[in-house]
Amino acid sequence: MTSLEATHTYREIHEQPAVIERFLRTQRDVTERLSAEIRRRGITHVVISARGTSDNAGRYATYVVGGYNRLPVALATPSLHTVYGLPPRFDGALVLGISQSGKSPDIISVLEEARSQGALTASITNATSSPLADVSDFVIDVQAGDERAIAATKSYTSQVTAVALLSAVLAQDAARLAELDRLPAAVQATLAMNDEIAAIAPRYRYMTAAVVIGRGYNYATAFEMALKMKELTYTIVEPYSSADFLHGPVAMVEEGFPVVVIAPSGRMAAEMADFVAHVRALHGETIVISDDENVLRGARTPLRLPQPVPEWLSPITAIVPGQLFAMHLANARDYAVDAPRGLKKVTETR
Amino acid sequence: MTSLEATHTYREIHEQPAVIERFLRTQRDVTERLSAEIRRRGITHVVISARGTSDNAGRYATYVVGGYNRLPVALATPSLHTVYGLPPRFDGALVLGISQSGKSPDIISVLEEARSQGALTASITNATSSPLADVSDFVIDVQAGDERAIAATKSYTSQVTAVALLSAVLAQDAARLAELDRLPAAVQATLAMNDEIAAIAPRYRYMTAAVVIGRGYNYATAFEMALKMKELTYTIVEPYSSADFLHGPVAMVEEGFPVVVIAPSGRMAAEMADFVAHVRALHGETIVISDDENVLRGARTPLRLPQPVPEWLSPITAIVPGQLFAMHLANARDYAVDAPRGLKKVTETR
Repeated sequence: MTSLEATHTYREIHEQPAVIERFLRTQRDVTERLSAEIRRRGITHVVISARGTSDNAGRYATYVVGGYNRLPVALATPSLHTVYGLPPRFDGALVLGISQSGKSPDIISVLEEARSQGALTASITNATSSPLADVSDFVIDVQAGDERAIAATKSYTSQVTAVALLSAVLAQDAARLAELDRLPAAVQATLAMNDEIAAIAPRYRYMTAAVVIGRGYNYATAFEMALKMKELTYTIVEPYSSADFLHGPVAMVEEGFPVVVIAPSGRMAAEMADFVAHVRALHGETIVISDDENVLRGARTPLRLPQPVPEWLSPITAIVPGQLFAMHLANARDYAVDAPRGLKKVTETR
Repeated sequence: MTSLEATHTYREIHEQPAVIERFLRTQRDVTERLSAEIRRRGITHVVISARGTSDNAGRYATYVVGGYNRLPVALATPSLHTVYGLPPRFDGALVLGISQSGKSPDIISVLEEARSQGALTASITNATSSPLADVSDFVIDVQAGDERAIAATKSYTSQVTAVALLSAVLAQDAARLAELDRLPAAVQATLAMNDEIAAIAPRYRYMTAAVVIGRGYNYATAFEMALKMKELTYTIVEPYSSADFLHGPVAMVEEGFPVVVIAPSGRMAAEMADFVAHVRALHGETIVISDDENVLRGARTPLRLPQPVPEWLSPITAIVPGQLFAMHLANARDYAVDAPRGLKKVTETR
């Protein structure tokens, strides 16, 4: 039996500050060139092709690129290309593929079609020599190094950082670029939550289902934490925006039902504090990831983020306790964190 | 105690053929006028603002409008408007609101912004005198009549029919318009599944969690059936595309884990037959909604659709057994189907 600290999963979670630092140091130039081309072509919207963890980085882009850069972002529907033979027209679009391995045939087919239509293509990948990179006009390298754990962690935070860098560069926003430079230290500080999370994980040993709630920038974080919990702990975990959750699924909440809320400080915090109070009133069990005391006040299990960051970057620190929680819960259940049942590292769907 | 047949939910499910017939008879003209304006303006993409059930009608649009009409569809992120004050630019877009009540402030705010930018706005709603209708250049009336059950059924199938009609009219496709005219009879035939589903529902009395799988046109159906099950039965039910499910969440499947697969005949059926076989090999319990014998073969519980329809319209018949299953399961659990705990008919989120 391997100790947890010797697993790929544990090591890769802890490599994240170094990966992000290396990413920011090396990928500014290609991002500047892609941004210049986006401006030159007068791009009006972005179509993102991604699956699984990478799709969650795309979900972050719908907020940061959709909001800050004001370019609407659509998540592609690969089956229109691969099964139905009815690809959309990509006039005026940047078509962006996000994939750790660069190998999933359905993701590649969307970029192939975009290229054949003459649209601008780019990819965010950990494999600069890959079929995805081959059909991309610009390739942003997430610099995660070899990722050996089945559950992606360091490639995810670096993909999200890549989207954040693209947004800041596109906006030519020096203040945001400076905020990005402080990110590796903030992620490092967040890793200090490891021991606390290891200590609380056994409380959830027999939890069979949960929901994870995030909204705005952290809608993506809710999806990614839910995915890590499904992959590593086989718990039924569903992600929601707090608004969508109140439009129906809130009916599921009964005494002790676990509701994880990801709500760092920022514009969304006041609303999320109300949401946490609402769930407490329904006798749900609240697990709250935040640095805002008002939000944390309603937590049965508070997971206090040690270092506040600007809200637009908070998905990159706020996912870290989510990764740690999934890993330690798997460990508390004596599951092999590096080898979840039924999964391979590269999933090839069409 | 009311008998099930006397509930709003039961009656509204059974009103669907009449609602769809009335919708098609009355809304062709406004849909023609909207389509002419879409062509006149050279619209390049569609942004849809919706929540809950209506969002699932939007999900259908990503396939039928994205594929058949080749216009990429983005689902709007209302919090960018209502919380962050960072609305995207809508140059070249049709901005379409979908809402039964026409009252949800966040949905309305997206259309208000679009109108102030000079973009084309339209809505698909059951309330032609509503704040949403007031900010729409074109209003398509789903003609569902008074919807009193908390769980929306007839307004959903009519919303999906509205999207289908818009797609066919936009393409000026007489064959598809004729297929639409045969839809009310097909939905009527599907209602004959009621007694069979009432008989099998008790088997799932103690089911605590499940997933619902659909892909392509029926990705939306998977989301909508999962939502009905959550609203009416408080089961933890998560929707997935089969491709996304294989990228991680498949790790959850253990002996007896219930996997609902929605896979009518068509281009997706062969792949879905393989998927069903894969789940059976993992000893999952398969509940299959299909008219394709090859897909049904792998079902522990086959729910055979009595009348095949063209694949692009299959979401409108395939959701019917999903609605019936959710209702009968709630009834088997002695839940009040018309009054799910914690829900109101109109949810006002911002």
